[in-house]
Amino acid sequence: MSLENSTRSAVTEEQYPQDKAAVSPAVIRRLPRYFRYLRELIRQGKMRISSKEFSIMMNVTASQIRQDLNCFGGFGQQGYGYNVNYLYARICELLGVSAGLCAVIIGAGDLGRALVRSPMFEKRGVDIIAMFDVDETLVGRSVGGVMIRDMDALEHFLREVPVDMAVLTLPKDQVSEVTDRLVQYGIRGFWNFTGKDISHDDQSVIVENVHLGDSLMILNYKLCQQKASEKKAKE
Amino acid sequence: MSLENSTRSAVTEEQYPQDKAAVSPAVIRRLPRYFRYLRELIRQGKMRISSKEFSIMMNVTASQIRQDLNCFGGFGQQGYGYNVNYLYARICELLGVSAGLCAVIIGAGDLGRALVRSPMFEKRGVDIIAMFDVDETLVGRSVGGVMIRDMDALEHFLREVPVDMAVLTLPKDQVSEVTDRLVQYGIRGFWNFTGKDISHDDQSVIVENVHLGDSLMILNYKLCQQKASEKKAKE
Repeated sequence: MSLENSTRSAVTEEQYPQDKAAVSPAVIRRLPRYFRYLRELIRQGKMRISSKEFSIMMNVTASQIRQDLNCFGGFGQQGYGYNVNYLYARICELLGVSAGLCAVIIGAGDLGRALVRSPMFEKRGVDIIAMFDVDETLVGRSVGGVMIRDMDALEHFLREVPVDMAVLTLPKDQVSEVTDRLVQYGIRGFWNFTGKDISHDDQSVIVENVHLGDSLMILNYKLCQQKASEKKAKE
Repeated sequence: MSLENSTRSAVTEEQYPQDKAAVSPAVIRRLPRYFRYLRELIRQGKMRISSKEFSIMMNVTASQIRQDLNCFGGFGQQGYGYNVNYLYARICELLGVSAGLCAVIIGAGDLGRALVRSPMFEKRGVDIIAMFDVDETLVGRSVGGVMIRDMDALEHFLREVPVDMAVLTLPKDQVSEVTDRLVQYGIRGFWNFTGKDISHDDQSVIVENVHLGDSLMILNYKLCQQKASEKKAKE
């Protein structure tokens, strides 16, 4: 039984908060981190956690934890702490972990293959049902249990199978053309690793651009700042 | 000649702003994106760009552009626009692109191998000098021109060669032990893909945690919200 399934039953134990929609975008952005820590707590067999313990674990203030999780309810009397399973199930529900989303990966290069083999998708309830590439030497091979298909077969495949999301790991110069094809066949979500920001006129298209290099540059910057200040301190 | 080298000479053409340190952390966080767009402009051979053109390209307001880039100077009279080469060189300098940082990758699995083959490091001036893994079947092989070495040889290697940064793509349960070993041998920067947040008592240790799954969950969330609102509209 998967972790998601084993905890879903806990949801019915406690009352949902009155206003299910009252979660601010800033809180939403922080929820995936709570998801990871709650998952770890479940793995450890911990049933309850106080905001103080949780704040130490997550390295944020207890007041931040209380503010963020307030909208979910799910905690008993003062000092009794949060119900870990309940909170996890609520966050999973809100973030679509149990929504049965399915995805294709476009580009079966190094990154595409690394992604398809990672447990990340399964943990978050996303089912990778195919990969596509133009490279004939890759087409027909299976990676992580997922078949690599020919890009020429994309439209045919998407007519047969409804797909929610495309993970883009193809070269930059093909991004616009491929995105247009995917949108035309009903894909609305794009997880974009190409390094080229994409935006689309169609307001229903949702894009998460991932720029790993931006994160690397921030690390570079901080290392250089530190080296400079160490040098200054020595002078 | 690399893109970085070809533009460095442009720096001397114009005066540096008076206060070199006056760049806020919020602006720093946005600079890697300017870096990418300026690089693209240079590739296109564009020498000058107005804040208006730049704002359309980057999909932010012209006023945001002016505020962010104000601290760099480098623009002529009103309406003449920014000097692309100059701005690029200044941002490269500030973000440490020409600082000669060098890195090792710990973990030569799918992600480690995908990263070492990516042009991302070279573009940002980071030199990958070795990969390390415990898997004997990988040790001795070369990926993207970089040798995979035995984890047992880590200390010996780091005694010989000063390394600024470690890219962590190893399993979660080994992160703490390996990080401690690396810190002991002088590594101060960690680019952490393990999914386990790391923090270190040593204040001089700098960590950029990359959680790809968090970004996936935000996409999941937005897709589910949209599906729900489309369903509601149909009712």
